[in-house]
Amino acid sequence: MSAFDDLLAFQRQTEALSSVAERLGWDQETVMPRGATEQRAEEMAAMEEVLHERRTDPRLGEWLAAAEPQTEVEARIVELIARDFTRTSRVPARLASELAKTTSLAQGIWAEARAKEAPEEFLPVLDQVLMLKREQAAALADGGDLYDALLEDYEPDTTAAEIGALFDTMRPRLVALREDILGAEDQPQALTGHFPQETQIRLARACATVFGYDWSRGRIDLAVHPFSSGRWQDSRITTRVVEPEPFNCLYSTIHEVGHSSYEQGIDDDYALTPLGRGVSMGVHESQSRIYENQIGRGRAFTGWLFHRMSDAFDGLNIADPEAFYATVNRVTPGYIRTESDEVQYNLHIMLRFDLERDLVAGRLGADDLVEAWNARFLKDFGVTVDRPANGALQDVHWSVGLFGYFPTYALGNVYAGCLNAAMRDAVPDLDEALARGDAAPGVEWLRENLQRHGGLMPPRRLIEDATGATVSPAPLLDYLEEKFAGIYGL
Amino acid sequence: MSAFDDLLAFQRQTEALSSVAERLGWDQETVMPRGATEQRAEEMAAMEEVLHERRTDPRLGEWLAAAEPQTEVEARIVELIARDFTRTSRVPARLASELAKTTSLAQGIWAEARAKEAPEEFLPVLDQVLMLKREQAAALADGGDLYDALLEDYEPDTTAAEIGALFDTMRPRLVALREDILGAEDQPQALTGHFPQETQIRLARACATVFGYDWSRGRIDLAVHPFSSGRWQDSRITTRVVEPEPFNCLYSTIHEVGHSSYEQGIDDDYALTPLGRGVSMGVHESQSRIYENQIGRGRAFTGWLFHRMSDAFDGLNIADPEAFYATVNRVTPGYIRTESDEVQYNLHIMLRFDLERDLVAGRLGADDLVEAWNARFLKDFGVTVDRPANGALQDVHWSVGLFGYFPTYALGNVYAGCLNAAMRDAVPDLDEALARGDAAPGVEWLRENLQRHGGLMPPRRLIEDATGATVSPAPLLDYLEEKFAGIYGL
Repeated sequence: MSAFDDLLAFQRQTEALSSVAERLGWDQETVMPRGATEQRAEEMAAMEEVLHERRTDPRLGEWLAAAEPQTEVEARIVELIARDFTRTSRVPARLASELAKTTSLAQGIWAEARAKEAPEEFLPVLDQVLMLKREQAAALADGGDLYDALLEDYEPDTTAAEIGALFDTMRPRLVALREDILGAEDQPQALTGHFPQETQIRLARACATVFGYDWSRGRIDLAVHPFSSGRWQDSRITTRVVEPEPFNCLYSTIHEVGHSSYEQGIDDDYALTPLGRGVSMGVHESQSRIYENQIGRGRAFTGWLFHRMSDAFDGLNIADPEAFYATVNRVTPGYIRTESDEVQYNLHIMLRFDLERDLVAGRLGADDLVEAWNARFLKDFGVTVDRPANGALQDVHWSVGLFGYFPTYALGNVYAGCLNAAMRDAVPDLDEALARGDAAPGVEWLRENLQRHGGLMPPRRLIEDATGATVSPAPLLDYLEEKFAGIYGL
Repeated sequence: MSAFDDLLAFQRQTEALSSVAERLGWDQETVMPRGATEQRAEEMAAMEEVLHERRTDPRLGEWLAAAEPQTEVEARIVELIARDFTRTSRVPARLASELAKTTSLAQGIWAEARAKEAPEEFLPVLDQVLMLKREQAAALADGGDLYDALLEDYEPDTTAAEIGALFDTMRPRLVALREDILGAEDQPQALTGHFPQETQIRLARACATVFGYDWSRGRIDLAVHPFSSGRWQDSRITTRVVEPEPFNCLYSTIHEVGHSSYEQGIDDDYALTPLGRGVSMGVHESQSRIYENQIGRGRAFTGWLFHRMSDAFDGLNIADPEAFYATVNRVTPGYIRTESDEVQYNLHIMLRFDLERDLVAGRLGADDLVEAWNARFLKDFGVTVDRPANGALQDVHWSVGLFGYFPTYALGNVYAGCLNAAMRDAVPDLDEALARGDAAPGVEWLRENLQRHGGLMPPRRLIEDATGATVSPAPLLDYLEEKFAGIYGL
């Protein structure tokens, strides 16, 4: 056995154990008896300790030093294991454990503070989380930028400065488009009616099938929040039903199918190596978004969906496919990121990105967060936030220490824009297939050009390889402006 | 931290990890996508390796040597950890891994051989399994009896000689009772009709509730084979539905509720220690059996069930509760252990116990197994086995190396007999409650006198403590003779 073989054998077990831990998380959100929380916490903690020990095992350092990779694939495997080993080893066990404890506590306090509209109950513990995250970032950064060090966990091979520059070119066009849309004379009609849960789930499953979800390697269950979980042969998703709003269930499902299909689509040869998972949060989000938006909210697919929904619910209050297309893509003022549309979503992200960079750098204190949030929201959205649950308290992310995660949502949209442009060029008859309820030509293009590569290439190179063009926000912005000009008669 | 504290902290994590591995097994049998078998095998193997490393960790030896337990509970914890450590350490890793591989292979070969009625395809690999089991037994026995060494995994603190003597006193009375029953003039009517799956599951859930199943710490799902899985706050069961035979689903469920309630009933203070699980397979089976048979197949509960089933299925082909009681307890000739009744079940076990003792001792070779089985079956049951799937190929146990497991089924019945006698004395109004569909007084007696103790006492002492009498087959045999004399007019 060479050092590389030893390294790989050890890593395969670590990957398998990490997949077990992820499965426990799925179990907790879907089928776990409600009285089992204490036991599950002990089980998760034990798994985390086993994983942490393996990720910092001194033998890794020796194997990494001695490994002589023979191919591009082997070299990339070594590179990714080394990156994880270096990062994990840099954070003292004491700090990791304190972070785990404080964020677990902070999440509970956040949920209660949000329910009570009492930011003052949450901000002190957020301050503690921030201090620990800064300490973690300093350990990881090794002299470099603190925020970049955190960002690397979610979107490696990029910097906050690059993302900031990208967002700066996007913001004015998005703000302008948003104003034009909300000022337009004709506004699309809302969908109203009675939409029984069973029927919604049946339709959601039909949509998953249209988008090529492999049921032999996944499943769909109900959970409070939609998510996807797992990889390789076992990538499951959850959805939820809000009875008056069937688009919630249907488009959540298509979104999660995007995530899950990415995992299902990775080359089997990469299974149980660091190449056997989605390469970054941004690329992951590009898949969920292109399934959900560029394909799922396009005219061709919504035309098919209109007929399916009309049949399933015995008619709709929307007259025809064209009006339905506008309804699906309706833009309305709102405070909440997760409820927002393709146009406003990125503005929500940019607000969070700028605020969290300031929080991590110490330029903004937790005490001043609500004020800063509200000022920025007024500036970008033209509306005064009415209550904290609609403002700085709306997202769970910061309470659990996820600083550096938010920008990957918008980056995913940018990547989806690039991929969509290339996919439309390469698959000119995609809309024809979608109109028949067949997303296969699009899904196959994504699988062939992106998904199958897993972690083989860094995110940006992966997108550029797939599209044959430099990553740029232009395709996304062009697509949005053209699409919404059509819908709103701009 | 004292050595005992270190030992306990380490053990708690091991118990939590072992509970995770068990949960994976549940997932595989209930919700896992069918294409995930290869991944799951890797995950299970990785968990097993982690667990094996922990169970043979040299620090365990040091802590065990230095531990100074201060209470009876602490002393028992040390005793049980030491027993496991000694046993696990005695088996070379090479042998453990070979056993895992060979039995996994053998199980597949057994399933195919059974389907094809081709024992000659299975017996060679059974011979390999036997050679490895003898090697394992020799390592464990450390000079003692081979079969006893294997038995200890399932029923510690007893010997094959003791069990053999017990069975010898039972066999003649059971054989005689069986003959009397099958020769009786009036035979109870069989239940026939249409029993939709949904209704069966609804009734099974109602039965679980009657027997005190704690739904906040468990759940019921469908699986190919009924089983119970997990402990403490998360003990789940599965059931199955054979549509023409509703007793299959109902009594499987009550049986598994017995197992699962035992785990749920253990004192919370013992959680994540070796005291926090059922103490032996025999005691476990005593709980499933007393729920299923002495309570569930008694006149009082079947009276309640008759009315519930009549309502649920719009009438039955059985006239009244008394006839229904006879139907539930019908004894018919048959080859299959898992389909047999309270009277014949133990005869099935005794046959296997004697054969497997001979197999392990080398007095019987795999080649001669079918012949030996058929001769013994003819002797005890008066019938010639018609085909191997109804004979030596019917059970999975030997293919997966479970030698020493079978006798615990009959031991469980003996324990259940002892417990039933004591419970009936202590709870004279139990039948009155059962007639109303309330098993609580019986379940509470079992919980208070047996279940809550978990692994605190060795099996026999536990039963004797609970019943105030020496363990003996007499209560079981008396109960069976009286019950079936009544039903069959003997």
